[in-house]
Amino acid sequence: MKTENMILNEERNVTLTAYLQPAGGEFRNISRRPAVLILPGGGYTMCSDRETDPVAFPYLKAGYQTFILRYSVGEHATWPNPLEDYEKAMELIRSNEEKWSLYPDKIAVIGFSAGGHLAASAAVMSKNRPNAAILGYPVIDKETVSTYLPSAPDAAEAVDDNTCPCFLFASRNDSTVPVKNTIKMMEALTKYDISFESHIYAYAPHGFTTGDTSVAAGFDCCSRVPRWVEDSLEWLKDVLGDFGNQEMTEPKCKARINGNRDPFYNPDCTMGYLLKDKEVKDLLLPYFQPMMEHMHVEEIPDMVNTMLLKDILGFMNFTTDKLQEISDKLKNIPKNR
Amino acid sequence: MKTENMILNEERNVTLTAYLQPAGGEFRNISRRPAVLILPGGGYTMCSDRETDPVAFPYLKAGYQTFILRYSVGEHATWPNPLEDYEKAMELIRSNEEKWSLYPDKIAVIGFSAGGHLAASAAVMSKNRPNAAILGYPVIDKETVSTYLPSAPDAAEAVDDNTCPCFLFASRNDSTVPVKNTIKMMEALTKYDISFESHIYAYAPHGFTTGDTSVAAGFDCCSRVPRWVEDSLEWLKDVLGDFGNQEMTEPKCKARINGNRDPFYNPDCTMGYLLKDKEVKDLLLPYFQPMMEHMHVEEIPDMVNTMLLKDILGFMNFTTDKLQEISDKLKNIPKNR
Amino acid sequence: MKTENMILNEERNVTLTAYLQPAGGEFRNISRRPAVLILPGGGYTMCSDRETDPVAFPYLKAGYQTFILRYSVGEHATWPNPLEDYEKAMELIRSNEEKWSLYPDKIAVIGFSAGGHLAASAAVMSKNRPNAAILGYPVIDKETVSTYLPSAPDAAEAVDDNTCPCFLFASRNDSTVPVKNTIKMMEALTKYDISFESHIYAYAPHGFTTGDTSVAAGFDCCSRVPRWVEDSLEWLKDVLGDFGNQEMTEPKCKARINGNRDPFYNPDCTMGYLLKDKEVKDLLLPYFQPMMEHMHVEEIPDMVNTMLLKDILGFMNFTTDKLQEISDKLKNIPKNR
Amino acid sequence: MKTENMILNEERNVTLTAYLQPAGGEFRNISRRPAVLILPGGGYTMCSDRETDPVAFPYLKAGYQTFILRYSVGEHATWPNPLEDYEKAMELIRSNEEKWSLYPDKIAVIGFSAGGHLAASAAVMSKNRPNAAILGYPVIDKETVSTYLPSAPDAAEAVDDNTCPCFLFASRNDSTVPVKNTIKMMEALTKYDISFESHIYAYAPHGFTTGDTSVAAGFDCCSRVPRWVEDSLEWLKDVLGDFGNQEMTEPKCKARINGNRDPFYNPDCTMGYLLKDKEVKDLLLPYFQPMMEHMHVEEIPDMVNTMLLKDILGFMNFTTDKLQEISDKLKNIPKNR
Repeated sequence: MKTENMILNEERNVTLTAYLQPAGGEFRNISRRPAVLILPGGGYTMCSDRETDPVAFPYLKAGYQTFILRYSVGEHATWPNPLEDYEKAMELIRSNEEKWSLYPDKIAVIGFSAGGHLAASAAVMSKNRPNAAILGYPVIDKETVSTYLPSAPDAAEAVDDNTCPCFLFASRNDSTVPVKNTIKMMEALTKYDISFESHIYAYAPHGFTTGDTSVAAGFDCCSRVPRWVEDSLEWLKDVLGDFGNQEMTEPKCKARINGNRDPFYNPDCTMGYLLKDKEVKDLLLPYFQPMMEHMHVEEIPDMVNTMLLKDILGFMNFTTDKLQEISDKLKNIPKNR
Repeated sequence: MKTENMILNEERNVTLTAYLQPAGGEFRNISRRPAVLILPGGGYTMCSDRETDPVAFPYLKAGYQTFILRYSVGEHATWPNPLEDYEKAMELIRSNEEKWSLYPDKIAVIGFSAGGHLAASAAVMSKNRPNAAILGYPVIDKETVSTYLPSAPDAAEAVDDNTCPCFLFASRNDSTVPVKNTIKMMEALTKYDISFESHIYAYAPHGFTTGDTSVAAGFDCCSRVPRWVEDSLEWLKDVLGDFGNQEMTEPKCKARINGNRDPFYNPDCTMGYLLKDKEVKDLLLPYFQPMMEHMHVEEIPDMVNTMLLKDILGFMNFTTDKLQEISDKLKNIPKNR
Repeated sequence: MKTENMILNEERNVTLTAYLQPAGGEFRNISRRPAVLILPGGGYTMCSDRETDPVAFPYLKAGYQTFILRYSVGEHATWPNPLEDYEKAMELIRSNEEKWSLYPDKIAVIGFSAGGHLAASAAVMSKNRPNAAILGYPVIDKETVSTYLPSAPDAAEAVDDNTCPCFLFASRNDSTVPVKNTIKMMEALTKYDISFESHIYAYAPHGFTTGDTSVAAGFDCCSRVPRWVEDSLEWLKDVLGDFGNQEMTEPKCKARINGNRDPFYNPDCTMGYLLKDKEVKDLLLPYFQPMMEHMHVEEIPDMVNTMLLKDILGFMNFTTDKLQEISDKLKNIPKNR
Repeated sequence: MKTENMILNEERNVTLTAYLQPAGGEFRNISRRPAVLILPGGGYTMCSDRETDPVAFPYLKAGYQTFILRYSVGEHATWPNPLEDYEKAMELIRSNEEKWSLYPDKIAVIGFSAGGHLAASAAVMSKNRPNAAILGYPVIDKETVSTYLPSAPDAAEAVDDNTCPCFLFASRNDSTVPVKNTIKMMEALTKYDISFESHIYAYAPHGFTTGDTSVAAGFDCCSRVPRWVEDSLEWLKDVLGDFGNQEMTEPKCKARINGNRDPFYNPDCTMGYLLKDKEVKDLLLPYFQPMMEHMHVEEIPDMVNTMLLKDILGFMNFTTDKLQEISDKLKNIPKNR
């Protein structure tokens, strides 16, 4: 493993540390590696070492190139300085994809507490969006972030269609950053159909980092707390793909849970969404009528509203040709969102 | 193990099945056992066997007396029939505490999908409240429950001060019961300071039950899904206590995360809550002033608002006498909620 | 779940309890189920309830039909009575394959302590061999079994070619049944190329059963102890196959680790075994010579002795035709073991 | 984290790499750290990078100072060169205990394959014994080691009273280093009453290292394989102690499972061992007689032979005074081993 220490902004004391693993050679199935960029917490007044290296190690073990950004804090923290630091770091990482043997489209950001606010901001409002975001007991809402950095924005309110999948974890009884921050983020992601996973543990004090005894001895953490590390690693495999025999495998989990926000109508859209458009409804109903025996086609039960068209068609054993026909016709109906 | 099958309501086809383990004898450290009451799903049209015995087994393994309620469904389901079935079952279980060697104050309810709606209703609005509730991909909100049982209420909106701790799990891409149901329940629990744990997995179809291959072969579940079973068992130990060398251990996790909703002011209340009452503020500020050097006491930073008074006093190394003194004085300040 | 209690031998107080799960119906991918037969411990003087139901539950959860044999103990234990009880139980189970919806060739035996001796005896010397054996802190050797039942045989010394795969677990500091019993069994299985898995935990007192607090509260067990249950379940999937979308999947793990004990020479045999037969050697060497450049073919390094021929041929990129040719020729060489 | 690269022997190309974590500061409960010394495999012809950094990371995550020794291989490997390299490395590590903030008596050695032979040799025959040894699919016996390094000794045959506790893991169907190597080591440790833990997995090819996809993609490993990493970390806590609120906790697991090899007779000795000495027997029997009702004291059943005196006395509810009295008397009986 090689270590590189880079100064991103001397005046603001911003540094990027890289822990880089080899590709090729004995690692013959690895030509490049996915990467993580770690944003430690510290209330925008410091960057806590308890959330730098100890967090880097499990991702290194799993095969990731690993970066740690010590962003602008204290007097230098005025927004958008920390976000600018992130942008610079991510640009640098992606522009060195060959030198550092990494996949520029398989880079996750991991942030804790205030660093979780920065990671969430990266996910929802940066120019250089990460491909996945892991948010640990994150500061999200305006009320909470204001107590640390009044100039910083509410991250949940900025969630958009381009937000990457998120993995959130927090403690229910966190009395420093209340759990409502995490819940607000989940709600925003839900509204935009963004994929996520979340784990809220019954109890643990704020700042438990990996939950290992080396960083959290004496913390009153419930037994599930340390599992977020392994769970996040398995989730990253789902979202970015896994190391395979020759190259990375295909991701199993898409960025959005349905196609409602795609530019065209398609079979990944939900029935409720499709049937709201009269033209789409007129297209689809004739296909369903034969299956609905004594029911009038308008009486499609509400419970299918949340289901995907492709799943409904699957239940009905439509042929591939029919599916393609429907898909093609849907594409041609103009969408006015 | 003994099995008992009881008919609770012949007309509505309501039955209670009991799987009962011995106490005493070779199990010499066990005089009584905690219990779980399982409420299978099935959209209030059936009670699914995929969520009865397969769910009972892990709780039996962990030492629980285990009950399965097949409640009113289909034509018999009109609300509040299912809730009445629950009340009858819970009354019967608690009234047989000696015969069935169980602790009447250590009974958790476990429900899935529509059964999750019933379990949540038991937790928030029943006369015979359970001591803990495990809600699996539950139907919670009015919009969703209406598609199955229009007469049934929104469970989240009925959360109250007497709601028991909850363990929630769901899948992010559930297209039958959307994840917003689970999130709405978390929000309501948060509002009432009720303790909970929650796990939302990135992907799995509705109705994955334990996630074992015997009930979910062919389901596209992410790798974390089956962990809810073990996690719920460890959470129950936190909330109800665990089997000890002689008797059950003390629970580690209280029903509420702070004392704001207790009948009297006390050191478990949050600073923000306490300081809103002028009389309390006048009591507390003199204790803090000496520690705050050059700061004016009115400038207590916002970030302490969410912290518990006892934790603040702990940081300040107050003596036990001082703590008692403050505690006693707080008790005497009348509370107008 | 249905329970059946059967008397196998009234005079000797031998009973078989069956916990039977449904097949078909809502369990539409399940036509039959694999099964386990549990043999509790108790030093051949009793059958301990701490190793009956609590052990049955995890296998029930995993989808198995589950049987508990209370075999001859105390005055009735004289060998081979307990083994005869086992034979009768296994015959009964297999002859009811249809009625009890089970696979007669997917039945594992699970025994603890003295019951582990009986399970091992079933695996190595019974007429009705099980398809897999799980041996928990088992009594194996003559010296140990003699202190409990002098008439009983050493189980390791009877290992033969027809012994099923075994899963062994024990505690290093067991002062009742020393760990050498488990090690002796491993050695015997190794000698006969039988597949096995074993877990010896650093410390735990004898008789920890599942390691759950409900059966082992107050026991000084190291943290890994309870993992044997889940590990044994995953191992059973490897050895017997797993529940699939329609039927059971193919096992991933064969009963023997190589083909040395098969009736004919074949590519699963080890190189060391094959090259000991001059006729085989004369057949194989010409195939290898071209790859061995400047080495004389007699100089094949010792380190290939333990490798399988098929793996060596795989490294050499032989065509399927060539492999078949070699396989056919090997078959025709008479084997004198 | 700081990295130091040190040349231990330029001619033989021996290097020591140190990954060093801070003590104190934000890690206020940590004044020093335990350490691991990693010995990669490679058949004494190379040092495989697949078993260096990827192995270091989980121990770094757990809080350990971590060292990697690239010892003499190929033409330089003639025994005892690799062992001398180990001695030099361990001396260097221990002599820098203050500079590198480590506990000189909490250093584990971890070796794989040929490196497992070297680690085992360190454990049984070095001058600078490690405090614990983790042996991964190790080469142990003379037959196997001879195929790689004919000058190297059998490690099992050198086990002695000063051998440290060992954690062993291997694959049952390893066709490069057969599992009998691991079993032989277990037997030798058993003979000397040395504590150990071992995990033999049903199947995995040789050289699976951590079992992560980044190092073992395409390997046919059974699902339990990757668990050795976490299991070894929990075992190290048992053997060396864990990070506590202020300092390291007391180890839970002693180096030997009984006191038979201590310089004096004591209550940790087994009954069988004690009763073989006539003077000890004459001392002990009168204490037992009153408890044995109608039994003649000479009829102490064989099954107590393997139990510890202190456990027997515990069952009998002896007072602390009586225990001390017996302990003192035992000490005064001369021991002739």
